[in-house]
Amino acid sequence: MAKNILVGQSGGPTVAINASLAGVIREALWSNSFGEIYGALNGLEGILARNIIDLRTCFGQWETLEQLHVTPSMALGSCRYKLPEFPNEVFGKLRKIFTDYDIGYFFYIGGNDSMDTVAKLSDYFREVGEPIRCIGIPKTIDNDLPCTDHTPGFGSAAKYIATTIAEIAHDSAVYTMPSVTIVEIMGRNAGWLTAAAALARTESRSAPHIICLPEVPFNLDTFIEAVGEKMKSHEQVIAVASEGIRYEDGSYVSSSDAADAFGHVSLAGVGNVLKESVSKAFHCKVRSLELGILQRAAAHLASEVDINEAEAIGRQAVKAALQGHGGVMMAFRRLSDRPYKIGYDIVDIHKAANREKTVPLSWIHSAGLDVTQEMVDYIRPLIQGRLTYVEDGGIPDYCWPDNHLPVCI
Amino acid sequence: MAKNILVGQSGGPTVAINASLAGVIREALWSNSFGEIYGALNGLEGILARNIIDLRTCFGQWETLEQLHVTPSMALGSCRYKLPEFPNEVFGKLRKIFTDYDIGYFFYIGGNDSMDTVAKLSDYFREVGEPIRCIGIPKTIDNDLPCTDHTPGFGSAAKYIATTIAEIAHDSAVYTMPSVTIVEIMGRNAGWLTAAAALARTESRSAPHIICLPEVPFNLDTFIEAVGEKMKSHEQVIAVASEGIRYEDGSYVSSSDAADAFGHVSLAGVGNVLKESVSKAFHCKVRSLELGILQRAAAHLASEVDINEAEAIGRQAVKAALQGHGGVMMAFRRLSDRPYKIGYDIVDIHKAANREKTVPLSWIHSAGLDVTQEMVDYIRPLIQGRLTYVEDGGIPDYCWPDNHLPVCI
Repeated sequence: MAKNILVGQSGGPTVAINASLAGVIREALWSNSFGEIYGALNGLEGILARNIIDLRTCFGQWETLEQLHVTPSMALGSCRYKLPEFPNEVFGKLRKIFTDYDIGYFFYIGGNDSMDTVAKLSDYFREVGEPIRCIGIPKTIDNDLPCTDHTPGFGSAAKYIATTIAEIAHDSAVYTMPSVTIVEIMGRNAGWLTAAAALARTESRSAPHIICLPEVPFNLDTFIEAVGEKMKSHEQVIAVASEGIRYEDGSYVSSSDAADAFGHVSLAGVGNVLKESVSKAFHCKVRSLELGILQRAAAHLASEVDINEAEAIGRQAVKAALQGHGGVMMAFRRLSDRPYKIGYDIVDIHKAANREKTVPLSWIHSAGLDVTQEMVDYIRPLIQGRLTYVEDGGIPDYCWPDNHLPVCI
Repeated sequence: MAKNILVGQSGGPTVAINASLAGVIREALWSNSFGEIYGALNGLEGILARNIIDLRTCFGQWETLEQLHVTPSMALGSCRYKLPEFPNEVFGKLRKIFTDYDIGYFFYIGGNDSMDTVAKLSDYFREVGEPIRCIGIPKTIDNDLPCTDHTPGFGSAAKYIATTIAEIAHDSAVYTMPSVTIVEIMGRNAGWLTAAAALARTESRSAPHIICLPEVPFNLDTFIEAVGEKMKSHEQVIAVASEGIRYEDGSYVSSSDAADAFGHVSLAGVGNVLKESVSKAFHCKVRSLELGILQRAAAHLASEVDINEAEAIGRQAVKAALQGHGGVMMAFRRLSDRPYKIGYDIVDIHKAANREKTVPLSWIHSAGLDVTQEMVDYIRPLIQGRLTYVEDGGIPDYCWPDNHLPVCI
């Protein structure tokens, strides 16, 4: 008897994570090599609560898969549950559930922390001789996973950021008076998203004029000086800053809230802190904007390349499982830039888990206040194309399975 | 000799105002009944400074007009200059400039305050026997101009708001824990934009659950009670609130900054004020979001209906001028809802200037915390279709004429 598949989603939402789920379902159906295709509601938490649903029933039709492909966020829900170190009774509990459901393949779509879960589970199952293949499917808007050229979800967030920075530049240019606009962008420790703002530049659009990444210590004096310098040549200065920028002593520029279960600090307010300093230094209009959660949720502006790659890597994960792989993360390898071509890698999950890929310092210049052309060339192919979706009543016809999901089996 | 045309833009940016400019230029070229087609940089301020450009040179090609049609904000720039009451020396100054440039037709694209300018200038020119026809072309995301079914710019902002509220709802649904999300929406005195959030609802998406318009006094106790009530049936509650909501005593819920030249108070922070109150009342995750200037700048999600109507009303304004109209504002009249059909009205500018059209109280229900189906049916046709635009390097290929505008003539 063919073993069953279990899929879960974890971590923060992106617009690409449902496309990867659609890819897993599509390839599993296509291959005809598996038993049931199960989905865990709210990741590991859902597995522990046996909140497991039949994905063939939910998404077994072509139309529902197409709708899932374009829907942002996570159809199966997420969790922030951190698997403890082995030994712990939770591992035995999970083993019991996996064997009760006759799971032979476990796919977990997520970021750094989710890969940690895949690594621990995979090691445990190997240790106890349980033949369950665990495969991590990467996703994170932050693009901070190692061993892969980039992560699904990043391209769409980058496209959203570049486009909206361009639109903000147009908006700020309507008045003749000088102004400074500070835009706060997501990305705790890695500056990839903030760097994507540079893609708003064209021959005739100079914004953004200053780009502050978290990889280099932030110096307020240098920043204020740079703003003053830019104001000489540009009436409306646009500066973008990562939410995670820190002073030389390591303290965050923003005020920080309490840490989450993974020890991550929740940040907010870089824009407002910088706004105050700029307002004190210059007599001009200063405003601060946060792009906020639309960076990870705006499927209406998703990158076609990104969403199609997200679906493809989901399918590749199922193929890898059929080839006998386990304890791995799927990855992209860039084969060429022009034309843009990628291939797929299957990497040891331990090399990917719990590590962050930050922006190389050689891609940052101007005293840490700008990025190089290499950075722009790296991101450019990932934001190509607009995702096609169906509208209903003037808004995207996303699936909303909450109300339609069958009772857990 | 045919007289010359002068066009200006004024007030806050929208994604539709350049389409109206494109309409004026296109119809003026097409009719072949005018002399020069001039544009005033930064509205009335630019006229007074004789910053006047030749629009045939800038946008006389089909390709540049198509690009202008989809570009957000204001290609000619804006101003917040308030024309004083007559008599004042500025009127004589303007008369001199208008006659120097041999202007026979003046088109001003703007909102309430711009219509005030058109009314005063038109009255003055009539008074002194100057045969210059002044025509107002409406635009404002706020939809608060009287005498017209709706205003260009509103449909696109409404589409952006409805779409992003849907995406925020998807984002907030990923965790099982209860949460309250408060979204602050533009609209000082009129609740049209906030009401547009209701269009995010579908059979399977109940968000937004609470809608607070500025037309009805805001009561914090009633609001908190409503949030509590909604939390019983929905794990993730989404509430939207206009930036301009006020308590019964007339004071703003937000903290207010200084007033602008027109006496308008700049508002910010409703979301944060409500967030604090909700956090105190309930032990759950509460977040506050501001949709911010993307509401008026996100041409990447412009409504096709809105942008096409904006271009059409610009063309109609030129036709009206040729028919001999002056001292008027162009307006939309809704001929039918299904199918959606509009016609054009030419209304006395004095009926339109300095008045605000707010939401009728009969379209607000649930103790002021929701809108009726009539409201949804009214807005729905205005958000239909996605504007088609060309991408260059993965971002919209907007025109950016700042660098290309010829020296003022």
